[in-house]
Amino acid sequence: MKIGSKQKLIRAALVCALAFTASVALATDPLPSWNEGPAKKAIVEFVTKVTTAGSPDFVPVPERIATFDNDGTLWCEQPMPVQLYFALDRVKALAPQHPEWTTQEPFASLLKGNVQTALAGGDPAVVELMMATHAGMTTVEFEQIVKDWIPTAKHPKTGKLFTEMAYQPMLELLAYLRANGFKTFIVSGGGIEFMRPWADKVYGIPPEQVVGSSIKTKFEMRDGKPVLVRLPELNFIDDKGGKPVGINQQIGRRPLMAFGNSDGDREMLEYTEGGSGARFELLVLHDDAAREYAYGPAKGLPNVKLGAFTQALYDQAQKDDWTVVSMKNDWKTVFPPEAAAVTAIDILLEPDAAMLQHAAANNARLLAVFPKGFALDATHRPHITLVQRFVRTADLDKVYAAAGKVLADANVNNMKLEAFKYYYAPAGAVGVAGICAKPTREILKLQADIIVAVQPFTVETGPIDAFIAPHDDPATDAAIIQYVSTFVPKMSG
Amino acid sequence: MKIGSKQKLIRAALVCALAFTASVALATDPLPSWNEGPAKKAIVEFVTKVTTAGSPDFVPVPERIATFDNDGTLWCEQPMPVQLYFALDRVKALAPQHPEWTTQEPFASLLKGNVQTALAGGDPAVVELMMATHAGMTTVEFEQIVKDWIPTAKHPKTGKLFTEMAYQPMLELLAYLRANGFKTFIVSGGGIEFMRPWADKVYGIPPEQVVGSSIKTKFEMRDGKPVLVRLPELNFIDDKGGKPVGINQQIGRRPLMAFGNSDGDREMLEYTEGGSGARFELLVLHDDAAREYAYGPAKGLPNVKLGAFTQALYDQAQKDDWTVVSMKNDWKTVFPPEAAAVTAIDILLEPDAAMLQHAAANNARLLAVFPKGFALDATHRPHITLVQRFVRTADLDKVYAAAGKVLADANVNNMKLEAFKYYYAPAGAVGVAGICAKPTREILKLQADIIVAVQPFTVETGPIDAFIAPHDDPATDAAIIQYVSTFVPKMSG
Repeated sequence: MKIGSKQKLIRAALVCALAFTASVALATDPLPSWNEGPAKKAIVEFVTKVTTAGSPDFVPVPERIATFDNDGTLWCEQPMPVQLYFALDRVKALAPQHPEWTTQEPFASLLKGNVQTALAGGDPAVVELMMATHAGMTTVEFEQIVKDWIPTAKHPKTGKLFTEMAYQPMLELLAYLRANGFKTFIVSGGGIEFMRPWADKVYGIPPEQVVGSSIKTKFEMRDGKPVLVRLPELNFIDDKGGKPVGINQQIGRRPLMAFGNSDGDREMLEYTEGGSGARFELLVLHDDAAREYAYGPAKGLPNVKLGAFTQALYDQAQKDDWTVVSMKNDWKTVFPPEAAAVTAIDILLEPDAAMLQHAAANNARLLAVFPKGFALDATHRPHITLVQRFVRTADLDKVYAAAGKVLADANVNNMKLEAFKYYYAPAGAVGVAGICAKPTREILKLQADIIVAVQPFTVETGPIDAFIAPHDDPATDAAIIQYVSTFVPKMSG
Repeated sequence: MKIGSKQKLIRAALVCALAFTASVALATDPLPSWNEGPAKKAIVEFVTKVTTAGSPDFVPVPERIATFDNDGTLWCEQPMPVQLYFALDRVKALAPQHPEWTTQEPFASLLKGNVQTALAGGDPAVVELMMATHAGMTTVEFEQIVKDWIPTAKHPKTGKLFTEMAYQPMLELLAYLRANGFKTFIVSGGGIEFMRPWADKVYGIPPEQVVGSSIKTKFEMRDGKPVLVRLPELNFIDDKGGKPVGINQQIGRRPLMAFGNSDGDREMLEYTEGGSGARFELLVLHDDAAREYAYGPAKGLPNVKLGAFTQALYDQAQKDDWTVVSMKNDWKTVFPPEAAAVTAIDILLEPDAAMLQHAAANNARLLAVFPKGFALDATHRPHITLVQRFVRTADLDKVYAAAGKVLADANVNNMKLEAFKYYYAPAGAVGVAGICAKPTREILKLQADIIVAVQPFTVETGPIDAFIAPHDDPATDAAIIQYVSTFVPKMSG
């Protein structure tokens, strides 16, 4: 028997972990990056009442629609919205093909590095900039341009990737709502096709759940291939009164919960509030100059050109009982831990030869009647999980040592387990089947000892990049992260 | 012990049915209303290859997007699209407020019953008709108008409700695709807000998965209430080249499968075909004058004004290897069995007092740690399901008699069952827990006898209206229908 460690394919691991499930799920905090306080309390109370069967406020799953503004609500929008950085980089990349830009505004100023001067022209300048950089190519080409840019584009102050500046508390909130049957949507003034290429990876929000501003497109055949060409003509501005219009056009349901951070979100929140029954509205107030930015002008905070949260909006929030999040007071952390720093581990026992044979025979029988199932192969190996956790990657050697000591002391090679039944747990289209072993006193002690040994190196949760398994389904990713984050205490003992 | 019968809440019934699950699922025909032939074969082969793990054509679940035209593809569009009947009825209803209509075309002809004359004005006449009947109210008001109209509106030839003229083979296809991880969308030239109020109930397609033509709307406050007002101005025509544009705007992914029936769908199918990897395109050819309508003009069928399937489209389908469905040859049935004619039954045993006590105690323990769970009450009673099936409502008395005879002969009150373990099956956010009894030879025989006794009165499947339980979640509805339809042989024996 040897220690299998590091990251494992969690789908396979689910199988045997379940064999040790001996207690009903205990409550864990779904919003660990939120401080205890009125905002967190309001969110949890609302979600609880609309999802509790028999509650007078119960809302059926299909009507659990949550809409989120993007810039300043889900990720950082200062000192300038990310899409503007994208446009500026595109101007630089396209400049060689546009010699006239050296004298033509707003391009001339931009190319000299004078962003403020370039944008002094206001909306017309911004629209001209957008059309010059966002139109003229096919939708597939534009998607690729965004996909190439986003993993390279860093914030001027923090040096982080923009995508690493999504707010950790909001990522937890998105996951919490989805775990409670909500469909989460972005409803942003930003460009719909600028957000879609990365929104799924960063927020777990798929393309069909992104509502945004758009330019017109036109279907045509180019060299016998069907394409959509992006035209330099505005189609829809998804801001202010446009947000309810966009929601109605694309979602066709009124939100149950709506989240924003600026005056551009007012009408979305009003529209949400206007629905029947219980509804929930929230605004993020950026009052945290130390960890992010502080801007209003509400409550005397500095004013900004884009993303302003006015005193009038603040007053309306008070009057209408909208929740206002103080970033400074309500958020324990602002940005996620860095991706590379966390690894998902699975410490497991390998069954003996007799058990491996049983597993192989059962798997073959199952595949004979259901060929779509998993085969037992290098990434799907029969095993007995003791613990799954997120640990700091830098501490991996210490984790090996600590777990190794416990296993050596426990004399695991002499342990015997009695297999006594099969079980099957549906998981999406496929599900997992397994063999249940009777838990013995010594193996439960072994598990408890391992948990204690690893504890000093653990962190509460981690990103999907902490796994080595392929991950291309955000729903599965979120489930796996949730599973590993809560393995202790949910699945142990 | 007594016979509980008629329709039961299936969520509760799932519990004990599982106790008898002794075999892995057997293959059942997911498309029973399709004749064996090239169209059915092409569909099943495509779905199998894109959903089989390890297949070179495997497509991850989030990319399984299927788009369906509505008029003529999902429901009958002859002699005139349903939305036109709606507009005509609206003209009649609104006429008293518009005395000018008695002399103004196209209204004057319509009010005299001369539909052909009214529509002789072509598109401008149709647009004028639409604006006069579809604009001016709020979105909520319009939704209510559609909701009030649709349960009353009948086809002039068959006398059926229009919604009863959805094609049974396409309903099965929608369910089959969803069961294989597809998201199903409507992409129709029809009005988006005309379809949304009933598409979920009729097709299982929720509002956010409906793409269609639209007029502009405007957000405003009326008497302090936020509303969206429908303006008499075209916003988007979701037809021909507009279909790929609408798909890109609202879904943001290229379809993996696309289904249509007329020249208006050509570009949607081309756009689908233009994607990378395996794709699937299908056109329904209406060549069945006996059971529905026959129109082309492809293949020498009669021509029509709206919904034409030209010879050029037919030739392109041949050249591009699109599947063409012959309604006459490929469809076993065209329309669903009438709703009232089928009832879902659950023939079950009531446990004895000792077992009821155990169930109540377990339920109380579960609720203590998980208050969102189901309580054991009048609609959630502990029971042991023997069989679930759809039967003809007219035969219910015969079903009672046949089942009663078997139960009387079997002396069920003397049967003993040994409970030996608990189980839990996740089902969405909640799941069901239960107590497993060891199957005895006599109870397995009883179950087999009951199945045989009820067999003569069964039908393969039924609509959600065959249940008395509340149904407001289409995903659950589809799962329940599938579950009962396949209970024999999947869950028995």
